Amino acid sequence: MTDPSTRAEAFRQLHLADRPFVLPNAWDVATARLFEDAGFPAIATSSAALMVARGYPDGEEMPRREFLDATGRIARAVSVPVSADLVSGYGRGPKAIAATVRAAVAAGAIGLNLEDLDTGSGALFRVPAQVKKIRAIRALAGELGIPIVINGRTDALRRAPGDDAARLKEAIRRAVAYRDAGADCVYPMGLTDATSIATFVEAVHCPVNVMVRAGLPPLAELARLGVRRVSFGPSAAYAALGFLKRASQDVLARGVFDGLTEGAISYDELNALARPRAPPPAPAPAGA
Amino acid sequence: MTDPSTRAEAFRQLHLADRPFVLPNAWDVATARLFEDAGFPAIATSSAALMVARGYPDGEEMPRREFLDATGRIARAVSVPVSADLVSGYGRGPKAIAATVRAAVAAGAIGLNLEDLDTGSGALFRVPAQVKKIRAIRALAGELGIPIVINGRTDALRRAPGDDAARLKEAIRRAVAYRDAGADCVYPMGLTDATSIATFVEAVHCPVNVMVRAGLPPLAELARLGVRRVSFGPSAAYAALGFLKRASQDVLARGVFDGLTEGAISYDELNALARPRAPPPAPAPAGA
Repeated sequence: MTDPSTRAEAFRQLHLADRPFVLPNAWDVATARLFEDAGFPAIATSSAALMVARGYPDGEEMPRREFLDATGRIARAVSVPVSADLVSGYGRGPKAIAATVRAAVAAGAIGLNLEDLDTGSGALFRVPAQVKKIRAIRALAGELGIPIVINGRTDALRRAPGDDAARLKEAIRRAVAYRDAGADCVYPMGLTDATSIATFVEAVHCPVNVMVRAGLPPLAELARLGVRRVSFGPSAAYAALGFLKRASQDVLARGVFDGLTEGAISYDELNALARPRAPPPAPAPAGA
Repeated sequence: MTDPSTRAEAFRQLHLADRPFVLPNAWDVATARLFEDAGFPAIATSSAALMVARGYPDGEEMPRREFLDATGRIARAVSVPVSADLVSGYGRGPKAIAATVRAAVAAGAIGLNLEDLDTGSGALFRVPAQVKKIRAIRALAGELGIPIVINGRTDALRRAPGDDAARLKEAIRRAVAYRDAGADCVYPMGLTDATSIATFVEAVHCPVNVMVRAGLPPLAELARLGVRRVSFGPSAAYAALGFLKRASQDVLARGVFDGLTEGAISYDELNALARPRAPPPAPAPAGA
């Protein structure tokens, strides 16, 4: 599946199924290939985890070139479609952001997340400005002939003014605008409880992405609520680092190494993650 | 502790205590800072984990410049001493290998591992050749005025000819030669059982490094056996990836996310790993 249009279309179709798909967010080649081997149908990146692994805080402090290089390594390492977390697009205006998307697609991604949060000021971008950016990306997709999958993220649930109800209303207003501008999926950061999810899904009439966090209902309930995409976000990085913290404490406090040796993968398994996934065994000849 | 000589000397002294210290091997800034926060007195790198995370198999296929960049990010991110796993030195002769060590020290490392395995052919380098390399590094340390800590690794236990006894004998012969050439510590890869460890430690009369793997005795027994340094090697990467594999299987097979949300670190904790460790709180003023 090397053609970007085919990969993008396969990824887009995952959003149109009658049950949600789970999208794990990787931060390096090893985690991406591990998720691919586990059987996930696509991989996303987590910008927060990817940046911290390389010594930069979450946001857009990591130089753009380096960020795109790290994203491209992940995209080239797996054969499933890859959606790039592009933060707020590494640019102010639609042209600059479309240029970032063009570079991410050249690096191998066929989908992206775009936030409506100004990581510098912590304020939300105004809706018309965000709509222009999404339209520019959709126009780029047309120009390239690749059905780039746009996931329009809004941080209104935690950054809009007012009480919870006002914030949910603002998140819905933004999601509808992003959908109409060409987003294939909308992603209200922080949407976790079943009631709000149901309200949101019913209001936006398009694929909705929720993120794994404490309190998120299990997949079967998310399916009933009409969610189409469940992404890990940085949760796998939080969990893996929590695991290493506990193993470290065991070593330092008790002098035992079981936390590092039990349930571990092998050297050969680690090294295999640096190579493309082995093709499935050839089918047995007819009559065999 | 910013002066490299001070860091190197502090690291060297850890090898001379009357009980072993544990050295965790990190592969990116996040894991290095996590280990530092957990309380380890020094950090090493795992070349295998570091390379695979960036898309290269273990060995020396990763370009030298990129390898040194990744190592330097780890060294600069923590305030404790950092020992770099330099594989077989990224060069054939003593001069080339000393140049690699010089670059690693310039990048912030104050110690190193040097293998006697030709990663290309899988054969062991001859002892006189390996001795020349260690002498060249020791001479460089004198030239720089930094007591660079050399960990001389031998792969004789798995690559030398003969039976187990012959391999142990060859590993000891090599370790003694590396010690006499200027290694501060010797590291027989694959030494795990108590009897062989006791034999080895008694024979070499210098600090011995063993690696965490299934079957390694707990720290208290390693102390009794006279081991001075216990490194994680790639075991933390094997364990973290094994953890993510199980969490992935839970998600895919059962549609539950507990494996990702329980025992996880927070967003703030993740982001803090991209910043230097916060200094300890100032002592209360006298009489307070």
